Amino acid sequence: MLSLTKYRIEDGKNFRLADHNPSDTAHLKNKKEIAGIVEENIRIMAEEQDKLYAQNDYALLIIVQAMDAAGKDSLIKHVMTGLNPRGTSVYSFKQPTTEEMDHDFLWRTHKSLPERGCIGIFNRSYYEDVLIVRVHNLLNRHQIPHNLIDENFWDNRLKQICHYERYLIQNGILPVKFFLHLSKEEQKERFLKRINDPTKNWKFSFGDIEERRFWDDYQKAYELAIQHTSTPQSPWYIIPADKKWFARLLVSDIIAQKLQSLHLEYPTVSDEQKQQMETAKKILLDETK
Amino acid sequence: MLSLTKYRIEDGKNFRLADHNPSDTAHLKNKKEIAGIVEENIRIMAEEQDKLYAQNDYALLIIVQAMDAAGKDSLIKHVMTGLNPRGTSVYSFKQPTTEEMDHDFLWRTHKSLPERGCIGIFNRSYYEDVLIVRVHNLLNRHQIPHNLIDENFWDNRLKQICHYERYLIQNGILPVKFFLHLSKEEQKERFLKRINDPTKNWKFSFGDIEERRFWDDYQKAYELAIQHTSTPQSPWYIIPADKKWFARLLVSDIIAQKLQSLHLEYPTVSDEQKQQMETAKKILLDETK
Repeated sequence: MLSLTKYRIEDGKNFRLADHNPSDTAHLKNKKEIAGIVEENIRIMAEEQDKLYAQNDYALLIIVQAMDAAGKDSLIKHVMTGLNPRGTSVYSFKQPTTEEMDHDFLWRTHKSLPERGCIGIFNRSYYEDVLIVRVHNLLNRHQIPHNLIDENFWDNRLKQICHYERYLIQNGILPVKFFLHLSKEEQKERFLKRINDPTKNWKFSFGDIEERRFWDDYQKAYELAIQHTSTPQSPWYIIPADKKWFARLLVSDIIAQKLQSLHLEYPTVSDEQKQQMETAKKILLDETK
Repeated sequence: MLSLTKYRIEDGKNFRLADHNPSDTAHLKNKKEIAGIVEENIRIMAEEQDKLYAQNDYALLIIVQAMDAAGKDSLIKHVMTGLNPRGTSVYSFKQPTTEEMDHDFLWRTHKSLPERGCIGIFNRSYYEDVLIVRVHNLLNRHQIPHNLIDENFWDNRLKQICHYERYLIQNGILPVKFFLHLSKEEQKERFLKRINDPTKNWKFSFGDIEERRFWDDYQKAYELAIQHTSTPQSPWYIIPADKKWFARLLVSDIIAQKLQSLHLEYPTVSDEQKQQMETAKKILLDETK
């Protein structure tokens, strides 16, 4: 397993996105060097998931945030396929509906939290409310009272997220937060591929090109979010995303290690249950066919 | 691929559970004879699922009904692991909550229907409302007006289900209904295994032993349900379930064939979108780095 220290932000104070190289591969040269490792991590994840489900108290909340074309969907496909769908849920948060905007910003994500015993994957999350909403100044679409929007608004919202995640952890719902860190150049290459490769055309959206103009604003918003919401209990993982194989390796490693750190066990039965089993056994064996 | 005719009930009129052998394996001797086939079916399912998601109009609703210990959970684990969790949802319907019983019987399942483009798996379903509710006469717990319960009540409820499924199909949500057909003897063996094998103890529930006393009533209720809700458009599949490997083979075969029958395709782009792509390409290539 890789050392994750470099990628884990436990204290955001001095965090700078510029200090992280989107094409870093930890001196691994190519996909061939890691043959079988992602598969092995997925095997571990599935094994631990089975115990997580049986134990039925903790839940894992995997949050995936990134710029367009950073590979969120393909990461989820390649790292999460192999989990038991019973016990796995994926929510992709899109532009909020009118009903959703009629509520506080955590409402729509909160009701999609994973059940105990399950792994929930958020493709985008409540972090959008300090990213796109901040970059495009969309607060006026949400029905928040105007006089509550002051100069501390965004700092407060980031604090609310910290407190919310602390609440989740204290209730056994454990966030694991990934930022897929893509370079601007690689995003361009991927957009061009969607345009030039007819089989990828359907993935193209002109909106993505328009959003790209706000690249620097988004990077700034991400930097601020990561600075203010990285804690030892709920760190951000900055995943170099220019090489998809490396992102998959790192993410599968982190999730496998996180699950193993919980020391999950299949439940044991109480003395009362043991007695019930003895009674049941007698009933079954005494049955006339 | 197997011939499915024998297992598909398109017209329930003369359906008798007794005509179906729970330990049938279609002359296949053992697991070894089908090595790799379930895996190949799962590969096809995943491939078709990707197109289903891209096409984003049809949805598949897989319903799994069975007696206790028939292997619903392990079937879901072994046949559905390998699907992309983005685009797959599993709902396990338990004893209804007070809120759920305060609604009509289709309410709780309806809001859990799969989104378009997705595969939804119901572990139990609205069929419970003509099974356990009928066997144990639990209608008084549900807030249905007393004077609506007459001698036609159950027949009407079965007709409501038929009409509901027709509605779903006409709206592109396609039910695929499996009854895992277990023998009473094999259920006993599986219960005893849960009692005798300490690693399986946690799966044991005394309630299952109590329900076993109602075996004949359940078989009768299943028979009636299958008789009244099997149609060419929404057939029931009677899956011999004494041999888990055969049940997995059959179920994976049926789902793979169902998906292939839809002739799913990746979307093509319109002329307008092609023009947009040309504009986008120009913008991207003209960028100063």
